[in-house]
Amino acid sequence: MPRPARTDLVQPDGRRVYLYDHFEPAPAGYDAPTIGEDAYERRWNPLRQEWVLVAAARQSRTFLPARSACPLDPSAAGRSTEIPASAFDAAVFENRFPSMLSSAGGGVCEVVVYTGEHEGSFASLPAASLERLVEVWTDRYRALGRRDDVKYVYIFENRGEQVGVTLHHPHGQIYGYPFIPPVAQIELKGRATACRQCRLIEEEIDDGHRMLLSERGVVAYVPAYARWPYEVHVATRAHRPALVDMTAAERRVLVHAMQRVARAYDRLFQVPMPYMMLIHQRPTDGREYPQAHVHVEFYPILRDSGKLKYLAGSESGAGVFINDTLAESSAAGLRELIEGSA
Amino acid sequence: MPRPARTDLVQPDGRRVYLYDHFEPAPAGYDAPTIGEDAYERRWNPLRQEWVLVAAARQSRTFLPARSACPLDPSAAGRSTEIPASAFDAAVFENRFPSMLSSAGGGVCEVVVYTGEHEGSFASLPAASLERLVEVWTDRYRALGRRDDVKYVYIFENRGEQVGVTLHHPHGQIYGYPFIPPVAQIELKGRATACRQCRLIEEEIDDGHRMLLSERGVVAYVPAYARWPYEVHVATRAHRPALVDMTAAERRVLVHAMQRVARAYDRLFQVPMPYMMLIHQRPTDGREYPQAHVHVEFYPILRDSGKLKYLAGSESGAGVFINDTLAESSAAGLRELIEGSA
Repeated sequence: MPRPARTDLVQPDGRRVYLYDHFEPAPAGYDAPTIGEDAYERRWNPLRQEWVLVAAARQSRTFLPARSACPLDPSAAGRSTEIPASAFDAAVFENRFPSMLSSAGGGVCEVVVYTGEHEGSFASLPAASLERLVEVWTDRYRALGRRDDVKYVYIFENRGEQVGVTLHHPHGQIYGYPFIPPVAQIELKGRATACRQCRLIEEEIDDGHRMLLSERGVVAYVPAYARWPYEVHVATRAHRPALVDMTAAERRVLVHAMQRVARAYDRLFQVPMPYMMLIHQRPTDGREYPQAHVHVEFYPILRDSGKLKYLAGSESGAGVFINDTLAESSAAGLRELIEGSA
Repeated sequence: MPRPARTDLVQPDGRRVYLYDHFEPAPAGYDAPTIGEDAYERRWNPLRQEWVLVAAARQSRTFLPARSACPLDPSAAGRSTEIPASAFDAAVFENRFPSMLSSAGGGVCEVVVYTGEHEGSFASLPAASLERLVEVWTDRYRALGRRDDVKYVYIFENRGEQVGVTLHHPHGQIYGYPFIPPVAQIELKGRATACRQCRLIEEEIDDGHRMLLSERGVVAYVPAYARWPYEVHVATRAHRPALVDMTAAERRVLVHAMQRVARAYDRLFQVPMPYMMLIHQRPTDGREYPQAHVHVEFYPILRDSGKLKYLAGSESGAGVFINDTLAESSAAGLRELIEGSA
């Protein structure tokens, strides 16, 4: 797929909207929603040695609206959504309930709407939408990475009410953090000249017991050291620091592998699996990170049918995860649910 | 309260049980439950640079049993619980569904049963039980800290089904980790000769806006850098590395302050607040930690009436917490719910 066409719009409150590929103009009388004026702060937590984002506006954010009031749908006559278009292929807009603001401490929160269709999910996206999506992510990484106040572009999706998702329309998010977040700091620590991720991938391939798929340069596996019962990592076998360092063909293979994992999750307990899907890439603070290697981590939060994995005292207060399953058993279960696997 | 009397028992499967103060012997025909033979492993997560505990037995653990089948009640004729006594004041036993085993990688998981009474909670414990409890904790810290395979004694309570609690009888847990957990490592990093916790407490007292109580050498406050909407820290103003370094009178003041916080939580939204309550103390690996300062952290997981704070993509995948409330507002709300405050 060629790089998608992008149309940039600005809402009356200054928030930017990006429409990718085809769209139809907003209906007559479109009335854009407006960001509130609220408290945004970044506070340093000296015990944890990390930043906490304070966003006192978010308490009022849209909470499970009725199907007919979805703010991520195309707009229609008499119904103004977040998207100033009456039809669209894919859209990105600056969140009206952000946890960071460039005008208050830096950073940006974008919402990525995968499709104009309300029904469905990442797992059910048709190939054209899926392949557009990975190009949208790549475009956003490139654009946000250029900003001085964005040191790390973090693309992720929270899926399911049990992860706190308040809108069902297929969408994800992008945070442009004004600092390198702690998890990335730990992953990149040591500034090894040899890439740790490359070594881990080869170890998983050699071992083989936790592999889910390995095709055309992309692998997916339950890492030996999984913290979540059905955690899966997806990565390029070749060393690629970020989406922008991959060819469009490589990105296409990657996103299809991601979708196969997401589909296997939905089959695992015969319910839509609530999960977090996140992409770790090279920081964009202008420094060199030869050890950065783009990889996707899926954290599904069910440990069994109808049973959630909770982050309780050990995880939250001590930082020690307890995994009730063996990675090898989880991989065996998921492997047979992966479609088209060899 | 004097140090409580302790009676040590051993179950047929080798698990130890400690009965504190008064108890009545097990009924005739007591049939002790037995630990399963399952997989326990410690795996190193090279991306996060942390240990993950794999405990593949826990999937079968007791899940919300009927009131009449509570395994933490005293035993009765025809009903054998985890406690080999037909009445007891307080009991500690080695968990039948542990996440660590001394025979498999080291470490220990104990369950602390606050009282023989099934109904109630930490917040509703009568003074005598509460004051016994802090002495039980102190005894366990001392006893577990002496073990070679325990480097860090972590006392905590998970409260509420929304934190994953599967038993309602008032109880908490103690993990004796065979390593220093990541959160403690970060808190203690730098080996400052000046105690960071001492400084933070004085800063909160000086500022005053987030203080909930300050009495007889113990303070409670919503830290300026709270990650959870109603997070509260309770600590001794004087530098005390661990419960064993405090006088019994100091411990009594501390545990009463903790209870006042727990009671305020239950009043906040007029529902039993699901929370984690955890005690950070000096490691027990034999090294010096002049900068360790015992403190209690409460993480209540409601951000509003009926609304949970979720740990989603930003928190779980990047390590960046988003707090929807201002610590100052949370403190103002909690302060007026604290009983007997000045």
